[in-house]
Amino acid sequence: MRARLPAVAPDAPESFDTILRDFREQIAPAMTHWGHPGWFAYFPSNSSPPSVLGELLSAGLGAQCMSWETSPAATELEQTVMSWYRQLLSLPEQFTGVIQDSASSATLVAFLTARDRVGVDHERLVAYWSSEAHSSVAKAARLADIPVERQRVVPVDGEFAMQPGALATMLADDARQGLVPGIIVATMGTTSSTACDPLRAIGQIARDHKVWFHVDAAFGGSAAIVPELRPLLDGVELSDSMVTNPHKWLLTNFDCSAYFVRDVDALLHTFSIAPEYLRTRHDHDTTVVNFRDWGVPMGRRFRALKLWFVLRSYGAAAIRSMIRTHVALGHELAAWVDAEPGFERLAPAPLALVCLRHVPPALQGDETALARHNAALMARVNATGTVHLTHTTLGGKYAIRVAIGSFRTERRHVAEVWRLLREESQT
Amino acid sequence: MRARLPAVAPDAPESFDTILRDFREQIAPAMTHWGHPGWFAYFPSNSSPPSVLGELLSAGLGAQCMSWETSPAATELEQTVMSWYRQLLSLPEQFTGVIQDSASSATLVAFLTARDRVGVDHERLVAYWSSEAHSSVAKAARLADIPVERQRVVPVDGEFAMQPGALATMLADDARQGLVPGIIVATMGTTSSTACDPLRAIGQIARDHKVWFHVDAAFGGSAAIVPELRPLLDGVELSDSMVTNPHKWLLTNFDCSAYFVRDVDALLHTFSIAPEYLRTRHDHDTTVVNFRDWGVPMGRRFRALKLWFVLRSYGAAAIRSMIRTHVALGHELAAWVDAEPGFERLAPAPLALVCLRHVPPALQGDETALARHNAALMARVNATGTVHLTHTTLGGKYAIRVAIGSFRTERRHVAEVWRLLREESQT
Repeated sequence: MRARLPAVAPDAPESFDTILRDFREQIAPAMTHWGHPGWFAYFPSNSSPPSVLGELLSAGLGAQCMSWETSPAATELEQTVMSWYRQLLSLPEQFTGVIQDSASSATLVAFLTARDRVGVDHERLVAYWSSEAHSSVAKAARLADIPVERQRVVPVDGEFAMQPGALATMLADDARQGLVPGIIVATMGTTSSTACDPLRAIGQIARDHKVWFHVDAAFGGSAAIVPELRPLLDGVELSDSMVTNPHKWLLTNFDCSAYFVRDVDALLHTFSIAPEYLRTRHDHDTTVVNFRDWGVPMGRRFRALKLWFVLRSYGAAAIRSMIRTHVALGHELAAWVDAEPGFERLAPAPLALVCLRHVPPALQGDETALARHNAALMARVNATGTVHLTHTTLGGKYAIRVAIGSFRTERRHVAEVWRLLREESQT
Repeated sequence: MRARLPAVAPDAPESFDTILRDFREQIAPAMTHWGHPGWFAYFPSNSSPPSVLGELLSAGLGAQCMSWETSPAATELEQTVMSWYRQLLSLPEQFTGVIQDSASSATLVAFLTARDRVGVDHERLVAYWSSEAHSSVAKAARLADIPVERQRVVPVDGEFAMQPGALATMLADDARQGLVPGIIVATMGTTSSTACDPLRAIGQIARDHKVWFHVDAAFGGSAAIVPELRPLLDGVELSDSMVTNPHKWLLTNFDCSAYFVRDVDALLHTFSIAPEYLRTRHDHDTTVVNFRDWGVPMGRRFRALKLWFVLRSYGAAAIRSMIRTHVALGHELAAWVDAEPGFERLAPAPLALVCLRHVPPALQGDETALARHNAALMARVNATGTVHLTHTTLGGKYAIRVAIGSFRTERRHVAEVWRLLREESQT
């Protein structure tokens, strides 16, 4: 597309009709359509009508939400909506929420706060996460200046969840060697397979060693608003911080990442800075907060508005029902895969993500050939243009991921992706 | 406002009429109106109609712009628009642009890249900025794990610009003591008074010592699209990175911060990470880029769209003309202040920001009393509700800032703020 665009900005104004025509003819057809009902790639990134209207009003207001005084209603609505969301997730009352742009940023915030809490000893700080944790965790460690030598990758069990026993051993070994265990990151709903680390056992280890415990529930967290799925988040009350993204499953367009933290003073100690030109009459008023001190950026958009619109416009019951439907569709697809000769399911499917591969008898046991075969199968399915899939590896095996969660996805779309996978596996 | 909102999320859906009524009655009146023509506080945060429509379409598309494959048109439009903007600013061809959320984040990116480039010696890394640099610089240093002992605050001259001679001395002293000068941050358009550090002299020192040179032109940079103001950015071609925010003066609603970097490989070395589930067929295709590797967050909004809409809808000539008008209004107000007995101007006004105070003869020389007097004066002016002002301190003196730059601000609004200041100074 780039080759078709002018190389320099126009000097004279262009009509909005021309600009919109270019949008329709040049931009829209060259986008990847994350909102399509056949979107089964990565994770869903839902953008519902009330959310889009919230974003529109927020852009129109053009407010800077760095402090209470620069945006009182935005600050207070963020507090209110984060409190609503905290209750929907059944998180402890001691948790306070703030909206960040992404789970990557929120996890970096957790690392920087944990490093700050360790203090002068932080050059011996060791960080722990499982081999299935998201890449943003290793990236946060790197950016927080924790080198590879002090990063511990804890092994997972057969269902891709962290082994707490292995974590405990690593921690004890490090402590014995004079290192300082400083942060443990557990995942509720890993990116590869939505595996859920045993938060309670991990949290207990974190408490025993006084280590910052961060829970990455970026995708999976939303499911915790459904009572029968809440057990997957059991033990989160032992954590120090937790991130979950309404901008994935919760009908709120990117960006809207909810970061919950137990010790707000620790967060403020790491991030607050108050030069004269930012001081307001309300800085020492304990009834208001200045969210610029709750993360990296000073400037902040009014993101609470769209989440407020979504929660009110749909109501919690309908959102729970949507998540239940997606999870049930995932179970149904998992059952279809299990029943189909030649197909293999590679992980449990607790959260609407099914990981599978096709195993022709001739290729059995040959991982390289199976990877090539399934990559080609996925490419053929994607080439139909009806659905979009992405892949991962699980225990060294190439896996096709079918991530259900777009709010436009119905049973017939899941049936279609399954039909395409079977059909293309025969060519 | 918070006390009037329900404490829990609704279970049942609410009508959009009800929600919008609450927006109008509860939210809008409790916002600080950054888009008002009487906005003279902080810096402008413009939100123009084409920008808002770009944000609307971007939210509707709901695309994730983390890699080329997940959003080809968004990636390529970002490259195109950043190239347009680079040319409008007359930046060197070797600079490549990427959109970040804020200057705070972009400056952190510069610090982390500089730290990475220093490598194993980074525990001796020293960072330099002037006493007038924005607080986000010291915050970035802190987050990049550069403690206060290795932060050098360079003194400024009588016009609040960094003294390059003092910088050179500090650098030489540190090098002699075995420390490693690692990053210099200069500002073009400081927050307190829009002072412009001498970039060419500083850049030459940075080159001589092979130190990363970052230019914070968050507000002022936009002025460089006007030929006669471009000299204020002279020497930027010696820098390694530069940030300027179209979301301030350039009619593009927050967030849209342009980060330009010379050595993209250095940036990628610091920020790229490639797990299996993010790999695409295009990762080794040198004709495309994956912007997730150009900063902290993996997920990214399609922010190039609104800047594209703005540049095309207004055209560069009209935007230049708007900036010229604002700067001329600043000069006019400065002249009014200079001519008015009892008022004092506290800094040059190169970029539409006038810093002033009222000095009644009885308070002359008493800084504490003058600060109290001017804070009260500003509070009275703000209480009229017609304009909004904020303050700073300059050389220990309390200064009222009149920051012109909202695209709705006309000469009559500037005349009005000046009338109010004079009128309230007499009560």
